[in-house]
Amino acid sequence: MQPINPTYRTTFAPPVMEARRWIAGKNFAPDRPLINLSQAAPVDPPPEALARAMAEALIMNPAAHLYGPVLGMPELRAELATQWTAGYGGTVRETQVAITAGCNQAFTAVMSTLAGAGDEVILPLPFYFNHKMWLDMEGVRAVYLPTGDDLLPDPDRAAALVTDRTRAIVLISPNNPAGVEYPPELLRAFHDLARARGLALILDETYRDFHSREGAPHDLFTDPDWDDTLIHLYSFSKAYRLTGHRVGAIMASEARLAEVEKFLDTVAICAPQVGQIGALWGMRHLGDWLAGERAEILARRDALVAGFQRLAGWQLLGCGAYFAYVRHPFAKTSDVVAREMVDAAALLTLPGTMFGPLVAEGGSGQAEATLRIAFANADRAGLAEVVDRLAALDL
Amino acid sequence: MQPINPTYRTTFAPPVMEARRWIAGKNFAPDRPLINLSQAAPVDPPPEALARAMAEALIMNPAAHLYGPVLGMPELRAELATQWTAGYGGTVRETQVAITAGCNQAFTAVMSTLAGAGDEVILPLPFYFNHKMWLDMEGVRAVYLPTGDDLLPDPDRAAALVTDRTRAIVLISPNNPAGVEYPPELLRAFHDLARARGLALILDETYRDFHSREGAPHDLFTDPDWDDTLIHLYSFSKAYRLTGHRVGAIMASEARLAEVEKFLDTVAICAPQVGQIGALWGMRHLGDWLAGERAEILARRDALVAGFQRLAGWQLLGCGAYFAYVRHPFAKTSDVVAREMVDAAALLTLPGTMFGPLVAEGGSGQAEATLRIAFANADRAGLAEVVDRLAALDL
Repeated sequence: MQPINPTYRTTFAPPVMEARRWIAGKNFAPDRPLINLSQAAPVDPPPEALARAMAEALIMNPAAHLYGPVLGMPELRAELATQWTAGYGGTVRETQVAITAGCNQAFTAVMSTLAGAGDEVILPLPFYFNHKMWLDMEGVRAVYLPTGDDLLPDPDRAAALVTDRTRAIVLISPNNPAGVEYPPELLRAFHDLARARGLALILDETYRDFHSREGAPHDLFTDPDWDDTLIHLYSFSKAYRLTGHRVGAIMASEARLAEVEKFLDTVAICAPQVGQIGALWGMRHLGDWLAGERAEILARRDALVAGFQRLAGWQLLGCGAYFAYVRHPFAKTSDVVAREMVDAAALLTLPGTMFGPLVAEGGSGQAEATLRIAFANADRAGLAEVVDRLAALDL
Repeated sequence: MQPINPTYRTTFAPPVMEARRWIAGKNFAPDRPLINLSQAAPVDPPPEALARAMAEALIMNPAAHLYGPVLGMPELRAELATQWTAGYGGTVRETQVAITAGCNQAFTAVMSTLAGAGDEVILPLPFYFNHKMWLDMEGVRAVYLPTGDDLLPDPDRAAALVTDRTRAIVLISPNNPAGVEYPPELLRAFHDLARARGLALILDETYRDFHSREGAPHDLFTDPDWDDTLIHLYSFSKAYRLTGHRVGAIMASEARLAEVEKFLDTVAICAPQVGQIGALWGMRHLGDWLAGERAEILARRDALVAGFQRLAGWQLLGCGAYFAYVRHPFAKTSDVVAREMVDAAALLTLPGTMFGPLVAEGGSGQAEATLRIAFANADRAGLAEVVDRLAALDL
């Protein structure tokens, strides 16, 4: 048998692929089809005008088929710099922007330049599973920052976890999986902690386009020296429904991006050109459309919040952007509940056990008690149906 | 200042981006334009019918915009399995195939599952720089296997380098950067060595479609247990001119791919769907076209070989598939020669110093004496011009 890097034995298989196996080959009644709430994945393609712009580039623009610069298409980097500078009220330069093949790649690229085997990184609970997997595979220790029922991380508790091996704190806002939006002052407190201790603050804002707050969700970019601490991550996948095209972004110091370039050259060479062309077109033409998408997702959130108020036993801990994070009422662990819900309610959600340590691993019980519902995948009628099915559920 | 993973200080910046900087902002005479021989990158877009098939998918097929399975589109995995089984005279099952966002990603995914910090991997010299960069960044020691003027690695010398930390041997055939095709019996000898010592044999066949030999370039797949040792890598970038779409493949055991899936989920989620659609269309429709491309590249090779016979002082060490690896006649190191050739001859090549250790780092002098010429980027008239310019060059 060939060698296996032992760090691969310490991590888990991709949760979304695991959940796909739960439904593989199953038939659902025509009057009660499966509602798939497992992955933050738009169900519909992007607006037709965007698809046509990408298709036209394939026919008319030879460069759409050829390698581009490792750090991304200059026009897209410039557009991000311009819109972020306007939106966040600070200054982001084109040279502080890199394009990646999706936001997962943005995270792994940045993290690889920060931490290696034996180092430590602070992750609030519940974590995003791909973050945890990458740390595991790289031999980096994920240091958990527990949260209570408000699902908000506490900077003072984080400060107590910092050691001389700590390299970064990772925050996601609006949060995956917890659905909560971190208040600006909370983000500022984490930023100050990171700067004081010489750490990187990685802030993943994949879901920022669906934030309930009008205007900038934080003021971190207004600091002229933001890039000595902040590393911002973004994704085009959700905003413009481009999940299959793989486009994301990093904003960080030029020095950091010079290191990131080594990773991206070796792992990707460049982000897919068609996806970059689509992302740029979307940024330039779909502002109003995206505002409508945001309004629709906020309306879905309101519908789900109202629905949960009539659900006995269930508790909605977090609900925002794409996700609801809920406590189930059953005397079973969440992995069992999620699997049984496939047959019993034709609902596919992900169990909290995919987002945090079990009690046997030092967890508080949060993982066993909770489920993540990617509610934004369903429309308001679908969400009413989800609530009806949960109300009727008895496991 | 934020932390930097110290392994990033041990590796170098992307060589192709470095070479781009040598020509940035320069003007070349209209009667002697730059000939860019730095990167194995087709200059033209793919055949129009392929571009149209991809464009049509963007309009007609919503799935082209959405996430797909981590290990790739089932139809593409199946097509690769079928064509490889037919072409190599063995059995490759669909479940032994994974799709990646390019062959660089295939390498990093596989290597990450094999070796971690402190492990060792054997790389023949000259190496492919992205392989070396990945090992550096991961804290894996690249153990060099020197080659002489035939640029062929010796399995007996390799055997002497194996230690209890060795995890894999990496071969590329036809070779990047050396341009040589490894004979089937040489590949078999490395395979037997790897199997006997419990190592993985990674065989990167990115350039196999341009191999000068008719039929299978080796018989390794004919062993029913090939996947206990062999890990095969492939790229669609060169065959179908899809460099900007990022599609490659891995063939390995199902157990290996279960580990690879963890890496790909975390770094990529999935390969770009449009690229996969294009690759599948190419495999199904462009067999004859690809045979013509191969004939053209073999003719370019013959033209370059003939041209070098009239070049005093220059020595063609290897020439095949996409690359010529040559010894220059100047009393300067290759990094100086390559940079001076930009102004003196309007030729962009990469120096051997990007493909192996300097004398000061224990090298034999090969790196300083050699250049890589990505000759397949130029047509026959262009290659005649390249030879003329080299003949007139005096540095």
